[in-house]
Amino acid sequence: MSQRSKRLPRAVREQQMIDAAIQVFSERGYHSAIVTEIAERAGVSKPMVYLYLGSKEDLFLACVRSCARELTAALQEYARPELTPEQRLWQGLTAFFTFVADYPERWNVLYQQAAKHGSTIAAGVAEARDQILLDVTRLVRDDPATGQQTPPDRTRMSDKEAEFVARALVGAADSLTDWMRSYPDEGPEQVTRRLMTMVWVGMGNAHAGQIWSPPG
Amino acid sequence: MSQRSKRLPRAVREQQMIDAAIQVFSERGYHSAIVTEIAERAGVSKPMVYLYLGSKEDLFLACVRSCARELTAALQEYARPELTPEQRLWQGLTAFFTFVADYPERWNVLYQQAAKHGSTIAAGVAEARDQILLDVTRLVRDDPATGQQTPPDRTRMSDKEAEFVARALVGAADSLTDWMRSYPDEGPEQVTRRLMTMVWVGMGNAHAGQIWSPPG
Repeated sequence: MSQRSKRLPRAVREQQMIDAAIQVFSERGYHSAIVTEIAERAGVSKPMVYLYLGSKEDLFLACVRSCARELTAALQEYARPELTPEQRLWQGLTAFFTFVADYPERWNVLYQQAAKHGSTIAAGVAEARDQILLDVTRLVRDDPATGQQTPPDRTRMSDKEAEFVARALVGAADSLTDWMRSYPDEGPEQVTRRLMTMVWVGMGNAHAGQIWSPPG
Repeated sequence: MSQRSKRLPRAVREQQMIDAAIQVFSERGYHSAIVTEIAERAGVSKPMVYLYLGSKEDLFLACVRSCARELTAALQEYARPELTPEQRLWQGLTAFFTFVADYPERWNVLYQQAAKHGSTIAAGVAEARDQILLDVTRLVRDDPATGQQTPPDRTRMSDKEAEFVARALVGAADSLTDWMRSYPDEGPEQVTRRLMTMVWVGMGNAHAGQIWSPPG
């Protein structure tokens, strides 16, 4: 982390600064974080941080983008076409909760710190979130029976319906990260199983066009 | 709204100022909102706003508390013990989505504006959110078959499990308010039915201790 060699390629050095900044932003919050500490932890000078990554706001935005890129990459690993939708959802949720458990500081920057900020940063976060929603929507739209996208002539689930399910899933998963933190004996695998228990049957029903009706 | 009578009781006048402030904070955001505009819309002088409600931060916190109180009251109406858990969840979700549809500016202050702020305000919001989580957890813990809390000797769902389901529900519902805004043809009733479709069977399974297992 704190190798001082001048020979490091720019991209590597930038990533070192970003990694240090993610730690500091996560621990202190945006407003209390100071660039001096970030520079120290990255083993570079403060002017070098400004030179490479710009203002504190620019640096924070770079952190948000880096965290979003890593989360998206972690989620996309599951998207192998040979898996059934059930397997992909299971593995996607496992990947998500594993990311949150393994990199709490990245999740903190992406979810809690970034929510507090103005338009430029909010736009960066919204972009990452939209990409994830899009991936989940595509997953939901696939036919649970065949694992393929339902052919147009027998599409039962519209984009609107798939977006509904995707938003509910993403909202539930985001919210459950707090629960996972409260119960350290429950790891990503258990959280995923519990969430699958709660939503998988209902997703199948929604896909088949069966809508719940009020009792009585 | 803009009655200028000096005879109004203090509580009524305060609520008028708070209602005006909710509108302005929702439209402009906290930082761009100015107390002059709030005073104008409430039909009072700017010094009177400061005298009654304190600083802009105090005023915002009063708005958050007022919105939280109204949402909690709307949700608690459903908690009649003669209803089954299914009916209560259905009516609770309907009450929630109706509140969001009818008072978008209140939901905006409570959910989007408040999330951006520092410790005092965040604590006020966290308190409101914890109260709602507690209510939903209690609802979830009730036996779906009898509508009563399961007696201790046959409790199948622990507090931990009930909190899991409650957090997932609250997270999904929060997230779906964006979906409802994107599809104006879908009202609170439809959104509730869709969410019930997605979670009700699974909640019953979780309550009965059936945990989903990975396929294959």
